[in-house]
Amino acid sequence: MIRKICVFVGSRANYSSIKSAMVAINEHPNLELQLVLGASALLDRYGLVSELIKADGFKVSGEVYMLLEGETPTTMAKSTGIGLMELPTVFERLQPDIVLTVGDRFETMATTIAASYMNIPVAHTMGGEVTGTIDESIRHAVTKFAHIHFPATKDAKDRIIKLGEREEDVYVVGCPRIDLVDEVLNNKKINESFMNKGIGSKIDINKPFLLVSQHPVTTEYGNGESQIEITLNAVRKTGYPSIVLWPNADAGSDDIARGIRKYRLKNSNDNMHLFKNLPVNVYIQLMSKTLCLVGNSSSGIREAAFIGTPVVNIGSRQVMRERGKNVIDASYNEIEILEAIKKQIKNGAYPKESIYGDGNAGVKIANILSKCTWNIQKRITY
Amino acid sequence: MIRKICVFVGSRANYSSIKSAMVAINEHPNLELQLVLGASALLDRYGLVSELIKADGFKVSGEVYMLLEGETPTTMAKSTGIGLMELPTVFERLQPDIVLTVGDRFETMATTIAASYMNIPVAHTMGGEVTGTIDESIRHAVTKFAHIHFPATKDAKDRIIKLGEREEDVYVVGCPRIDLVDEVLNNKKINESFMNKGIGSKIDINKPFLLVSQHPVTTEYGNGESQIEITLNAVRKTGYPSIVLWPNADAGSDDIARGIRKYRLKNSNDNMHLFKNLPVNVYIQLMSKTLCLVGNSSSGIREAAFIGTPVVNIGSRQVMRERGKNVIDASYNEIEILEAIKKQIKNGAYPKESIYGDGNAGVKIANILSKCTWNIQKRITY
Amino acid sequence: MIRKICVFVGSRANYSSIKSAMVAINEHPNLELQLVLGASALLDRYGLVSELIKADGFKVSGEVYMLLEGETPTTMAKSTGIGLMELPTVFERLQPDIVLTVGDRFETMATTIAASYMNIPVAHTMGGEVTGTIDESIRHAVTKFAHIHFPATKDAKDRIIKLGEREEDVYVVGCPRIDLVDEVLNNKKINESFMNKGIGSKIDINKPFLLVSQHPVTTEYGNGESQIEITLNAVRKTGYPSIVLWPNADAGSDDIARGIRKYRLKNSNDNMHLFKNLPVNVYIQLMSKTLCLVGNSSSGIREAAFIGTPVVNIGSRQVMRERGKNVIDASYNEIEILEAIKKQIKNGAYPKESIYGDGNAGVKIANILSKCTWNIQKRITY
Amino acid sequence: MIRKICVFVGSRANYSSIKSAMVAINEHPNLELQLVLGASALLDRYGLVSELIKADGFKVSGEVYMLLEGETPTTMAKSTGIGLMELPTVFERLQPDIVLTVGDRFETMATTIAASYMNIPVAHTMGGEVTGTIDESIRHAVTKFAHIHFPATKDAKDRIIKLGEREEDVYVVGCPRIDLVDEVLNNKKINESFMNKGIGSKIDINKPFLLVSQHPVTTEYGNGESQIEITLNAVRKTGYPSIVLWPNADAGSDDIARGIRKYRLKNSNDNMHLFKNLPVNVYIQLMSKTLCLVGNSSSGIREAAFIGTPVVNIGSRQVMRERGKNVIDASYNEIEILEAIKKQIKNGAYPKESIYGDGNAGVKIANILSKCTWNIQKRITY
Repeated sequence: MIRKICVFVGSRANYSSIKSAMVAINEHPNLELQLVLGASALLDRYGLVSELIKADGFKVSGEVYMLLEGETPTTMAKSTGIGLMELPTVFERLQPDIVLTVGDRFETMATTIAASYMNIPVAHTMGGEVTGTIDESIRHAVTKFAHIHFPATKDAKDRIIKLGEREEDVYVVGCPRIDLVDEVLNNKKINESFMNKGIGSKIDINKPFLLVSQHPVTTEYGNGESQIEITLNAVRKTGYPSIVLWPNADAGSDDIARGIRKYRLKNSNDNMHLFKNLPVNVYIQLMSKTLCLVGNSSSGIREAAFIGTPVVNIGSRQVMRERGKNVIDASYNEIEILEAIKKQIKNGAYPKESIYGDGNAGVKIANILSKCTWNIQKRITY
Repeated sequence: MIRKICVFVGSRANYSSIKSAMVAINEHPNLELQLVLGASALLDRYGLVSELIKADGFKVSGEVYMLLEGETPTTMAKSTGIGLMELPTVFERLQPDIVLTVGDRFETMATTIAASYMNIPVAHTMGGEVTGTIDESIRHAVTKFAHIHFPATKDAKDRIIKLGEREEDVYVVGCPRIDLVDEVLNNKKINESFMNKGIGSKIDINKPFLLVSQHPVTTEYGNGESQIEITLNAVRKTGYPSIVLWPNADAGSDDIARGIRKYRLKNSNDNMHLFKNLPVNVYIQLMSKTLCLVGNSSSGIREAAFIGTPVVNIGSRQVMRERGKNVIDASYNEIEILEAIKKQIKNGAYPKESIYGDGNAGVKIANILSKCTWNIQKRITY
Repeated sequence: MIRKICVFVGSRANYSSIKSAMVAINEHPNLELQLVLGASALLDRYGLVSELIKADGFKVSGEVYMLLEGETPTTMAKSTGIGLMELPTVFERLQPDIVLTVGDRFETMATTIAASYMNIPVAHTMGGEVTGTIDESIRHAVTKFAHIHFPATKDAKDRIIKLGEREEDVYVVGCPRIDLVDEVLNNKKINESFMNKGIGSKIDINKPFLLVSQHPVTTEYGNGESQIEITLNAVRKTGYPSIVLWPNADAGSDDIARGIRKYRLKNSNDNMHLFKNLPVNVYIQLMSKTLCLVGNSSSGIREAAFIGTPVVNIGSRQVMRERGKNVIDASYNEIEILEAIKKQIKNGAYPKESIYGDGNAGVKIANILSKCTWNIQKRITY
Repeated sequence: MIRKICVFVGSRANYSSIKSAMVAINEHPNLELQLVLGASALLDRYGLVSELIKADGFKVSGEVYMLLEGETPTTMAKSTGIGLMELPTVFERLQPDIVLTVGDRFETMATTIAASYMNIPVAHTMGGEVTGTIDESIRHAVTKFAHIHFPATKDAKDRIIKLGEREEDVYVVGCPRIDLVDEVLNNKKINESFMNKGIGSKIDINKPFLLVSQHPVTTEYGNGESQIEITLNAVRKTGYPSIVLWPNADAGSDDIARGIRKYRLKNSNDNMHLFKNLPVNVYIQLMSKTLCLVGNSSSGIREAAFIGTPVVNIGSRQVMRERGKNVIDASYNEIEILEAIKKQIKNGAYPKESIYGDGNAGVKIANILSKCTWNIQKRITY
């Protein structure tokens, strides 16, 4: 019997986090992929990830517009509510056997509640990790709803079991993002034409440069503008040019965006190039070339360990997350950040570490989904 | 400084579960109660609990219509979505210092997500318990969002801590429902005029009778009709008259209701009296008089232990919940249920047990809320 | 080329109003029916019209739960909002060539706005009539959005043209409800077993009886309870038994329902039989047998003229509607209503009038839909 | 007695259209202004009109996030649905005596339906005009719901009466936008520092320049990109520099935006300056200085007649709207547009015409609102 696996992709980051599993589900003889796109993945101003996904050959089974404009904590909650009004309609139509949800973004609460209230088993990737921001609460709450768990690491698995989940429902598979990194680093030539996109100073990526990716911390809502300003000031003082990525669609992203804009107005000669969106393969290649990745992106923890990229990780967003030797932490302090960057530049690239898997998470997930069992009535183990 | 405590009451059961805390918050010099009513608490066909609450002297700060008619798993999810669209508006207006949410009904996910996404600390009663149905997942997920925990028992406290919550955030207070029981049993004369309400045969509550309260199990959606039929058949075979309560507004309540209606059509001489709604004090008094409470209501586990009511608990809904000696479990099997009822009738009333507290949970909750601290950025402890 | 015609049915009354057109669309070689059910048509407590529709052999292409429980003016507006969030999803999936919407209930604003904002042409039945309640505004507003008009009468056609619509877009077809009446009166034997359904006194429909159908008037919200009480008092004083229909799901239906319940408590010997729902063919047969139809149902104006039923039409709900000789109007006044009923009983049945068509509206609608043209960009004609 | 007048402002254009009435309501001794902001008026990427409004001294009584991101016809309908779920909550809280709604943007259907379903009288400005796009249907549908009408012209008044409205409910007051023009032209010095905002080439507004403002036509959804490209090509061929305004938040604005971006990529030396937002007083001053206003903005019809600005009006958006001698119409054709612009440049400024009022509409509206009566039960006059 064919099992229908419904995957919800709500953002570019989501797609990177689940693409290899989608490919493997599509190729598995006993699985059928039902792909539902939603949230920022559908939006022009986030670079129409939906088009990219279709160009990659995936068939789309449903589209869910759910982002209420505003990007405040209030609209983040309301957007989740809209998702929760919309997704049951989709699930009723598609009748999936399993809903596969990714990570800890706010939208996943809509996917998770819709499926579990409708007695559809929920499979969850990237559970059991530890971070800051509201993601920390979301991730563990999803674990308490999920019937099948796909943590990336042994450490995460142990945490899921401590949370009262049955050991037989927890499968360490590694992180599907690493599958992509592996593929990109092995196979693709870099296409430098993408540097014509984006705005700001022209930067030669064959010369030394810094890479900046800093997102809002929802639990520190209102501080994003000064947080990014501190980072950009530190980056400027290194004297190196920088490639800066736009924040993703969370409460507070407007603050970060405003901080970047104000910084650019103040520093006309900023030697900075800005991207609203970057294909994941380009981003991985930039990570493999940069002197140092600066900010609070989870890619600094996950992909960077596998690539060996030096990282300066700022603030609370990735606090406590399992990490490799390539990461130096810094607080929201210009001098501290500057010193850390200098130290990383001096050190250079690190040896590759496989903390978050070795590149075949997607295939493992598909295989398990094709034959796993579950209890639809969950019960805490203690 | 006065702390504003926002309490969401979404049903009659909710109100019973939090009323004593509401009274204590209202009376506390450093607390201000912001009462928000929603879901079935506003509806005529659930007996306008809102009117009852106002008659009890509470001021209402907001009303949230959120139930999408249908009572299927799909509408249960969508109703939660509507709640999640509506509650942020209320919280923005009221600016509470703490949101206090109750138990594990589906609506509490809306309250919990709205507040926590908006960086408002969430206090939660009745966490850490174990049951069946989707409530089991909801309860533990709320724990993972909540900042302050008010479990009813030591056992529940231990479970919350095992779930990775900080011990200093967990306060055993007992169950506020027991506060009500204590008050009712001590103070009130029974008002027998309520027997004129409801429909069906007249029953003399000063003679032996059975009490039936059976709700749908969302994770067994579609089986409610046969489940209630089995129970009612067993009850009839005892030869005693019965008082039967209407199910509450969950997915599947239509099935239970249909089962009751069909049963009545088949058994014209059913010796059964039906209530859609019953004031909590009347219900407690019926519990103290009945030969045996039959069904799967949580009151059979909580209040009944304190009162000493013999209980036959059917099916999976209360599975694993901490219980007293007064409960005999039975599966969905007519003979098994009949035997269990007979055994309980023979045994008679049990000695009172204080498993779920001794009657002052509300005051404890108010006192703690007036001075507790919390971490808005949650972090799992392991 | 086949044209896909999407029909939204939101209530039992809606179904009666469009059924013959649905049949004709289904049978037309160049049309495909896309039937979407929603609002009270899906709900158990309104008698699961959806099951009836499926039993009649129609295939359902979509179901839209949209009624927010409450039945206040506020929830009526919000329910329309929910419908307007849900229907675009359905239309995106079904890609209809034309959306056919019925009459003037509040839900039709959702259908109409969703379709017209999405550049799908809207066809509208029963436009151009005049009544009271909010329906009066809704009906004409829908006309201003609609691209194709199917008024029931010449008078209604003239009004639509006066509203600035192009004459070539307006087709007088008669009222599809009359098609049903014609069919029922010609073909069906009455099935008296339905009198076992409903509640209250047994009534022999082969002896004289009155028929009561009174709905809330949204623009007089809050007065429903006393309005129905006056009617029921007048009916009782005639000395004849009565069959009373439950109000439909508008703002204020709770008031009417409460009025009926209170009346029954006060008048134990009420000689009244109550139906929550009645199949349309049974209702038509009751209309053909009753001494007099009392209330404010539009059936008293439309179907009754065709059948010749004596009608006492109360209050403002049908004010100004084109009517036959069979109607006596009365205000909310017990004596006035009583006198009018007596007069009607004395008069007996009236000769049949074909004001609202002669029984082939459905076929005409289908034929026109199969070949009509329209302007998607509407423009007022003056 | 003080009448509470609730005004909903959903965009920058809305604000310009009602500001003078808001001022007059605020200043009127018998009126109280309840200002509700929503839709794009709250959003950073539309220039935070809300901040501007607060800076102008208005107190805000409610904020309604309602735009579902996407800007397709589907999300336009759904956004209206969200508004219709949210606004009843606001109206319940504010209990306005009258809701005043503006013009014909899609959001006004939410305001209008919410208020009228809740039996709150609706006053409507700018009714009775004729245009293209979905606005044409919306405007007349709002008229059919509205109880009090404030058309800008005699011609519009006649049309409202033809639509079946009672003459005593229709008050010609002129267009409040003209009030602003009058004020700006009389009182304010131009502040040229705003030219530092926006992006693109520096343009000296004291030398000849063209002004371009072109919005999507929802009923021609999908054609926006080529429509704007044609316009920009014609503008470039004049040889004059241009100031181009970003489109507003309708279905299809992404198409226009993409067209502008692509044009700029193709024409690096474009001599074009782009504004996402422009304070209304600056815009009016640009209108008074430009050689010619090109596009399909309603300001080319209304304000421009009063100012005497030469206008080339393109396509169907303003079709049939009452206009002055200052307008030359052109279809989506580069040569036609170019010829028309040349003709207008040659002609120079036109004499002022007061078609849409003479600058005191706001005061008239406030005075009428303070004493007008209405029928809450509407009834068509024929």
